[in-house]
Amino acid sequence: MDQKGYRRGSFQSSTSDEDMLEIAGASLDFPMADDDPPLDREMGGFSSYNGGEMNGTSKMMDFLEEPLPGVGTYEDFNTIDWVREKSRDRDRHREITSRSKESTWALIHSVSDAFSGWLLMLFIGLLAGSLAGLIDISAHWMTDLKEGVCLAGFWFNHEHCCWKSNTTFTDRDKCPEWKSWSQLIIGHGEGAFAYILNYLMYVIWALLFSLLAVLLVKGFAPYACGSGIPEIKTILSGFIIRGYLGKWTLIIKTITLVLAVSSGLSLGKEGPLVHVACCCGNILCHLFTKYRKNEAKRREVLSAAAAAGVSVAFGAPIGGVLFSLEEVSYYFPLKTLWRSFFAALVAAFTLRSINPFGNSRLVLFYVEFHMPWHLLELVPFVLLGIFGGLWGAFFIRSNIAWCRRRKTTKLGKYPVLEVFVVTAITAILAFPNEYTRMSTSELISELFNDCGILDSSKLCEYVNDFNSTKGDDLPDRAAGPGVYTAMWQLALALVMKVFITIFTFGMKVPSGLFIPSMAVGAIAGRLLGVAMEQLAFYHHDWVIFSGWCSQGADCITPGLYAMVGAAACLGGVTRMTVSLVVIMFELTGGLEYIVPLMAAAMTSKWMADAIGREGIYDAHIRLNGYPFLEAKEEFSHKTLAMDVMRPRRNDPPLTVITQDSMTVEDVETIINETTYSGYPVVVSRESQRLVGFVLRRDLIISIENARKKQDGIVSTSIIYFTDHSPPLPPSFPSMLKLRSILDLSPFTVTDQTPMEIVVDIFRKLGLRQCLVTHNGKLLGIITKKDVLKHIAQLANQDPDSILFN
Amino acid sequence: MDQKGYRRGSFQSSTSDEDMLEIAGASLDFPMADDDPPLDREMGGFSSYNGGEMNGTSKMMDFLEEPLPGVGTYEDFNTIDWVREKSRDRDRHREITSRSKESTWALIHSVSDAFSGWLLMLFIGLLAGSLAGLIDISAHWMTDLKEGVCLAGFWFNHEHCCWKSNTTFTDRDKCPEWKSWSQLIIGHGEGAFAYILNYLMYVIWALLFSLLAVLLVKGFAPYACGSGIPEIKTILSGFIIRGYLGKWTLIIKTITLVLAVSSGLSLGKEGPLVHVACCCGNILCHLFTKYRKNEAKRREVLSAAAAAGVSVAFGAPIGGVLFSLEEVSYYFPLKTLWRSFFAALVAAFTLRSINPFGNSRLVLFYVEFHMPWHLLELVPFVLLGIFGGLWGAFFIRSNIAWCRRRKTTKLGKYPVLEVFVVTAITAILAFPNEYTRMSTSELISELFNDCGILDSSKLCEYVNDFNSTKGDDLPDRAAGPGVYTAMWQLALALVMKVFITIFTFGMKVPSGLFIPSMAVGAIAGRLLGVAMEQLAFYHHDWVIFSGWCSQGADCITPGLYAMVGAAACLGGVTRMTVSLVVIMFELTGGLEYIVPLMAAAMTSKWMADAIGREGIYDAHIRLNGYPFLEAKEEFSHKTLAMDVMRPRRNDPPLTVITQDSMTVEDVETIINETTYSGYPVVVSRESQRLVGFVLRRDLIISIENARKKQDGIVSTSIIYFTDHSPPLPPSFPSMLKLRSILDLSPFTVTDQTPMEIVVDIFRKLGLRQCLVTHNGKLLGIITKKDVLKHIAQLANQDPDSILFN
Repeated sequence: MDQKGYRRGSFQSSTSDEDMLEIAGASLDFPMADDDPPLDREMGGFSSYNGGEMNGTSKMMDFLEEPLPGVGTYEDFNTIDWVREKSRDRDRHREITSRSKESTWALIHSVSDAFSGWLLMLFIGLLAGSLAGLIDISAHWMTDLKEGVCLAGFWFNHEHCCWKSNTTFTDRDKCPEWKSWSQLIIGHGEGAFAYILNYLMYVIWALLFSLLAVLLVKGFAPYACGSGIPEIKTILSGFIIRGYLGKWTLIIKTITLVLAVSSGLSLGKEGPLVHVACCCGNILCHLFTKYRKNEAKRREVLSAAAAAGVSVAFGAPIGGVLFSLEEVSYYFPLKTLWRSFFAALVAAFTLRSINPFGNSRLVLFYVEFHMPWHLLELVPFVLLGIFGGLWGAFFIRSNIAWCRRRKTTKLGKYPVLEVFVVTAITAILAFPNEYTRMSTSELISELFNDCGILDSSKLCEYVNDFNSTKGDDLPDRAAGPGVYTAMWQLALALVMKVFITIFTFGMKVPSGLFIPSMAVGAIAGRLLGVAMEQLAFYHHDWVIFSGWCSQGADCITPGLYAMVGAAACLGGVTRMTVSLVVIMFELTGGLEYIVPLMAAAMTSKWMADAIGREGIYDAHIRLNGYPFLEAKEEFSHKTLAMDVMRPRRNDPPLTVITQDSMTVEDVETIINETTYSGYPVVVSRESQRLVGFVLRRDLIISIENARKKQDGIVSTSIIYFTDHSPPLPPSFPSMLKLRSILDLSPFTVTDQTPMEIVVDIFRKLGLRQCLVTHNGKLLGIITKKDVLKHIAQLANQDPDSILFN
Repeated sequence: MDQKGYRRGSFQSSTSDEDMLEIAGASLDFPMADDDPPLDREMGGFSSYNGGEMNGTSKMMDFLEEPLPGVGTYEDFNTIDWVREKSRDRDRHREITSRSKESTWALIHSVSDAFSGWLLMLFIGLLAGSLAGLIDISAHWMTDLKEGVCLAGFWFNHEHCCWKSNTTFTDRDKCPEWKSWSQLIIGHGEGAFAYILNYLMYVIWALLFSLLAVLLVKGFAPYACGSGIPEIKTILSGFIIRGYLGKWTLIIKTITLVLAVSSGLSLGKEGPLVHVACCCGNILCHLFTKYRKNEAKRREVLSAAAAAGVSVAFGAPIGGVLFSLEEVSYYFPLKTLWRSFFAALVAAFTLRSINPFGNSRLVLFYVEFHMPWHLLELVPFVLLGIFGGLWGAFFIRSNIAWCRRRKTTKLGKYPVLEVFVVTAITAILAFPNEYTRMSTSELISELFNDCGILDSSKLCEYVNDFNSTKGDDLPDRAAGPGVYTAMWQLALALVMKVFITIFTFGMKVPSGLFIPSMAVGAIAGRLLGVAMEQLAFYHHDWVIFSGWCSQGADCITPGLYAMVGAAACLGGVTRMTVSLVVIMFELTGGLEYIVPLMAAAMTSKWMADAIGREGIYDAHIRLNGYPFLEAKEEFSHKTLAMDVMRPRRNDPPLTVITQDSMTVEDVETIINETTYSGYPVVVSRESQRLVGFVLRRDLIISIENARKKQDGIVSTSIIYFTDHSPPLPPSFPSMLKLRSILDLSPFTVTDQTPMEIVVDIFRKLGLRQCLVTHNGKLLGIITKKDVLKHIAQLANQDPDSILFN
């Protein structure tokens, strides 16, 4: 099943050099080994479970004192064995603990080992926070570069430029130091020509940024594209994609993320920030042996890094931890929860001390509401939830259809052209509309904002009636012409965002989904909010408003509607629940607004689930054929292990290795003739009684090594997996003892075990394979891939879409 | 191993009525059944995994169409089988889903079934919130009753009484309507006699309340005592304690909780509130078949109820969910997370709408700080963490020692006397000191409070220098005499609380630990905070203060120190981490203060863990011998499954049942001669090849039932566990087919499996037992109790302390 195959050339040449000796039928019989006393349990005689360590009794000492390099490692695009990795870590921990009593140095080593996890979290937090700050500042500056440049210093963004300005100016963001491109080139900013010039510069910069981004991704780090969350989910579930979290991916993703966000494409930086944080985590793991060498421990660190990523993306440390727990992570012990929380906090505080937005908040769209909401408002909130669910389902379907088309047709061959076209369309459509021209974060920030008296934004152009104003509280007012214009522009922006995002997500540039989703929801929410507000203003005598929304009262907060809409749409796309509500809660002031957010998130999830069960990340995982065993879905079919196991009814019987009767050549033949990644070891072919399981990779490495380094190992040497081996007559070639690479505790289930239980075992224990027995006899094997194929088949999907082991 | 035994009398009498016929050695041999074709897999022929349902092929139909009442249920004080329960729920769900296509009614049933979980959460939230409100209000009133009574209506508490007052009065809480007992009895409140009278009344009321509480607990619901959290943890891990979450426990616990809190004992209502919420959850489960009949599903509900309990106890819905996740729950799927969150929110909003404290907050000690803290302050915060850790470790040791003494000596026989003595001592010591006389919640609230200008409390009696006051900001000031008095009183209160709590927790009244722990920490924190403040005031020229604490600046917030101290002590006692910080975060205004809280919580946990690994709840679980398999602790020993399994080396071999050669009598003999709760079924004694596992209880019920209801079942009838049974000659007694009660997919491990993996399997899958094989032959069995005994042994504890299965 290993599609990669093994370097057969080198392997076969090494066997053909030997003088081959046929031992027919492996008829050598050592009764003692066939049925060794099961209760032989001298306390010193533990045979180690994994290939990593040997501490057998001295008479049985194998030639493998140290583990061979390569034994116990994995090929690229393969699934790790969680049980084995965790066992190795426990062995390592035991060794350090037992040594720590010997010397002071060993004690210090033991203590530093215990604290290395915390140190690592600190580093991850610092690095992720700093990178997030860097990205925020650069993206802000480059976004503004599309519109103009600061004369006081080209490295200032618009806002910063106007802060630095000493001269007085009327409009908040029109300081003399900031020059739009038309002002710089033709000397003024008025008139059609200036407009066209600015338009042109906007489009050119956008194209420049996005092309640079796609070329960098294509040239240096192909893994840097997309949001990265589907792949991170898969990696955390125990898959290996070498280089996906490497230093090149980190560097290129950080740079291209800034470029992609600045180009004005309909994408966000939030998802990719999680990828960036995970890269940081993975790279920093190399500082500590504990994490460098153990795939399971490293995944614990990555879970925490993902939490830190969300923490800086949304300024929500608790939400980040819950996001990691709910959405990303697979194996999340409580220890990791606490450490994730620490990493998330450090990252948040690092970002806060960088203060990229100058508002001492971590995100642009932090908002504090003060007005309570009324129970009746739950109706529009639920409506927003329904909208969010519908949008989510629609988006996922269309995006997956488009991505599948990209994968299967010629379209996928021209990523640069694709990015060029989409950027050009986005930029051309975006510039004329104020709400699409500004960056999406700014748009969301403006939509969330509750209008104060002094707000100059068009969205706040209400007809002021200063007689009814009491203190800070603004009553509901009639909308002015500005608001009506804004409504139309927002409606157009909504339509544009909805469609362009479908084509944007999945291109060969870093692209996050959170921000575009939130933007769609926020626009819809604000539209509904303003509509409600006007309805309440003009019709406060209606029954539904009576009692809570009298004339001159401030009863509707359109900003809250925008926020609820954003939560609903984000929920519809990602199917997040608790983490979504907590992130949104951390963006707002108080507990008060959790209920509307929760109502919308629940409705949206139900609505979207009714149309299609998968969230966008799971859909992309399936599209890419990654072997991801979803922990959230219940397996609800009534099949049994024997329906899933290999070999099938009419297949040849299971390939097994016997424990003490096969020669090196026999085993090499099996390795060459099959592509399985492991073989069960049995007492004898007749009895089919299971002894253990040996991995193909370990077997190949060990045989190759023995042939090179051990005297007398030839093709006719018999391989022993038994604990005791018989004394051989001198005429026989020396034997090869391989018990150390044998997994003596393979997982087994009976053929009658319901698949729901098998799936549960695979999920909870993180297995790669499981053997199937019937009445004590070995019958077959179920691998993770078999399970995934079975699930796909029962869901009427193509089982061959699961590509990897 | 079942210490309770089975009603042997009735069982044996029913066998002795029969004419017994000896079939020596079970020599009947049916080769076909011995080795039935393993690959026989008609898709229609699934044999159901559990005893609950039968849909085998028609020719094989057993007499059990419907499950027998009792089959698949558990005895009291036994462990449930999570795998079986979850399978049953999935079967149920499958059936409802498949039926839903048949009729509209079935469809409605299916939809209502899907939403019943949410409805249940709503009910739990409403009920838990209401009960919490009721408890708060009653406890407040009864606490004040110890000091006096309201003339305007005896049902008003002190505060409420003074709100109702129409007359003007000078001191905030000295309105004419409120009469202290001396005022009421002798007409005035001044002088030594009045003081003594008040003192006396205080002590009498305290004794009255606490005696009433202990008598009610003793008489009606013995399970209502204590905090309940250790037992709830055990129940959630899959143990059955009938009545622990029943209606009597709920009623009595609610009443006695109010009494116990009002009596002024050093205990809190927070832990018991979790118990009350879980009772609500358990009782409301009876409304829905889905939850009533399934032990696993019910535990999901209880996890959510625990979250709701903490949510109302601390006004912290997110913290409540995390508490349930981190501290209480065992099996916590993501679906439960989302539902718990919902229940916690509903409960919080119910409580808020009741508004028991009149401050529209959920807890008395909600506080908002506004001053930032300085990095150097982390030093005192860490000191507080160390104090908290030390206190936690000290408290756990002393309390456990005292509780063990209570269990083992005559002391335990006089619970009423014990409560009487402790209450008397508490009341006598508490009255003279203002800070112990007030309720502990009020004390904490006062300690957390940041002194404003108008605060009249003694703790805020600073030397005012109004010249340096700017706006609302109060600079650090010199402490006045009131503060110094308060310091002394607080120090005395600290000593008293530290010691009296050790004797209080564990008495036969409802008693929570959170509040006393927090009080100890808050006092210590406030003392340190005031000391720091005065140090900074008088020595602001010291190097450590220069740069951030100049003269006239408000740089130290003693209230924050109190809060940090409270977190540290709570952390030391309970070893909570994330949930502790989040609960504290929800009690304060902003994200800003998470870092001090986290620093203190981390130090405290490390410190306490260094002295003793167990938190108070785990220590109490161990004290009571409950079978709780800790999910947080790593099993770090290098033992193998064969070191743990039964039978041991020199024991008689494992008791097994053969699949097709034992008579009813043989099986009954085995049942009578052993006390095991289940038996492996093997192909034959010689081969020892495992077929399945049958539970003692199911076997007894089925045989008893067959003897009563099925014709021709006599002692010589052969019991068949095979799928196919041979045609019997007419002279033979009819056979008893029991395949339906056979678990065909028992979990097995090899004897070489490291115990760390076995422990992991038990934890993650929630097993009751696991069979051990060697080279395909059945060797032995490991039960949860064996695992726990093994862990206890390796930790140098008495393995016989594990009492239950």
